[in-house]
Order: sequence, then structure tokens, then C-alpha cells
Amino acid sequence: MSTGSAPSAVVITPKALLAHWQGHRRLTRRVIEAFPEDQLFSFSVGAMRPFGGLAMEMISMAAPMVRGIVTGEWDQSVTREARPKQEVLRLWDESTQQIDTLWPQIPPERFQETMTAFGQYKGVVCDMLLYVIDNEIHHRGQGYVYLRALGIEPPPFYERH
Amino acid sequence: MSTGSAPSAVVITPKALLAHWQGHRRLTRRVIEAFPEDQLFSFSVGAMRPFGGLAMEMISMAAPMVRGIVTGEWDQSVTREARPKQEVLRLWDESTQQIDTLWPQIPPERFQETMTAFGQYKGVVCDMLLYVIDNEIHHRGQGYVYLRALGIEPPPFYERH
Repeated sequence: MSTGSAPSAVVITPKALLAHWQGHRRLTRRVIEAFPEDQLFSFSVGAMRPFGGLAMEMISMAAPMVRGIVTGEWDQSVTREARPKQEVLRLWDESTQQIDTLWPQIPPERFQETMTAFGQYKGVVCDMLLYVIDNEIHHRGQGYVYLRALGIEPPPFYERH
Repeated sequence: MSTGSAPSAVVITPKALLAHWQGHRRLTRRVIEAFPEDQLFSFSVGAMRPFGGLAMEMISMAAPMVRGIVTGEWDQSVTREARPKQEVLRLWDESTQQIDTLWPQIPPERFQETMTAFGQYKGVVCDMLLYVIDNEIHHRGQGYVYLRALGIEPPPFYERH
């Protein structure tokens, strides 16, 4: 096709992908905040995991993934057990800063390289980062249902500032 | 930062982003299929929209967005009303083919251009495409909760083949 995209055309730069993700992370933080303290690690629908557990899964994946991509050291030692909402938010904010610090240290060519994350997930770095982002969006969407089921209006999906 | 990523480094090529999205679309199709016919447009949790309505929203956004980006013509005339599951799946498959045909016609430079989609959403093309993909992941995550609440096991999140 004469109008076909060149395979090397830039769709998303590293800087834009980080900004995109951090926008999502700001929204996810607001979803954590929206949960009542006593429901964060107890309420769920359909015998699924409560949102606090899902948020801790996100925390255990996000900065550790970026750190592993930069350093080759994979540490996912954050536990997913229940803790006060303020502690979840503190860990969230700590992750946000760590991601901002680590991300510019990813060598540009590494995004297309294959790595084995956490000793078990082999894949192209770019795909692994998208997986972490997509997993956050997926579980946050579940958090929206939990909030609605609790009679709480979730934050608007399109607000990422 | 001496180790900082070059702003022009490729994180995702157009071809890779299409493959990523079509992988998500295969999973979303399986979620539509997993709903019992009589629950697709009736069941929901927390007074939210049933999954059939969410799937029709996705159909009304996906191919029409790519077509608009290619042609500058914006048509979102697919209605979101209830219809048989087989008809939703047929429209889904039709969209899949349209996206595959239209996508390679997006000029590479257009991904960074600003357009106004459907006469009202102004943004960078790349961000608008990510929005459509993210919106699909978000609502599909809600579909997972509906399925669990119905006692149905959803398809694995990581299977995109």
C-alpha cells in the first residue's frame, strides 16, 4: 500500500507513554481515595478481590517493573495484604515518584528488547509496560463497579490531570 | 540526564499498536460471547449500563474513529440499542475488518497531528486512539464483574490470540 505507515514511524514516544500512564495513575489514585476506609479491603462483587487488593497488585507491578527494566533486578516484595487507606495512598505516591525517576533511565533501544520480568514473564519490554498499564485500567474499571454498587459516584474516566 | 530517552525514540510503531488493539478486541469479543443472550442488554450491577450497551459504544467508537482519522469524515451513526448477541458479534467482526483495512492508510505523521473527532473531541490523534483502546479495556473490566456476578468465569485477561 503506497499510503501504508512506515514500520519505524513514531506513534508514542517514551515521554508521551510516561505522561499517559501517570495520567491514568492520577485517576486510579482518585478511585482508591473514593473508597470508604472500611470497604477498601472488604467489599467486592461476585466473590472477586476487593479494590484494595487490586491496588496493591498495581503497586507491586508498577515501579518494580520499571526498576527491573532499568536495572535488571526484579523485586516484587510488596505484599498485597490489607492496610489503612492512607498507607495505600502513601505507597502509591512513592511509586509515582519512583516511576518518574526511573523512566528516563530506560535506554531508548530497550523498549524493543526482550527481557524476562520477575524471573517468569518473558516478553518485549514495550509490551510488558503496556500490560502493566492495561492491567491497571482493567482492574480500575472493576473498582468503578464496586463504587457504583456502594452507591458512590466514581471520578470521571476522562479526567487525568 | 545523560541516560535519558531521546524524545524521538520509538516505543510503539503503528503496526504494533494495531496488533495490540486487535489482541484486546479478540478478548473483548470473547467477553461478549460469554454473556447469556438474555443478560447481554439487561443485566448490570449498581445501575450501570448492561454490557451489550457498552459493547455497542465500543463499536460506535472504534472503526468510526479510525475512519475519521483517515478520511476526515466522522460518522458515529451506529445506535447502542439492544439487539441479538449474534448481531453484536457480526458488527464487531465487521469493525475488526474495517479497522484492519483503514489503519495502514493512516499517514505516519498524522499520529502526532491534532484533529477534532466527531465534531467535538479535539486532541492529538495518538491520544484519541489510546482513549478508544483504554475505554474498551475499562468497560470490559466492568463486564468481567457482571460475568462474575452472574456466576460465569470470564476469559483470561492475558489471552489475546
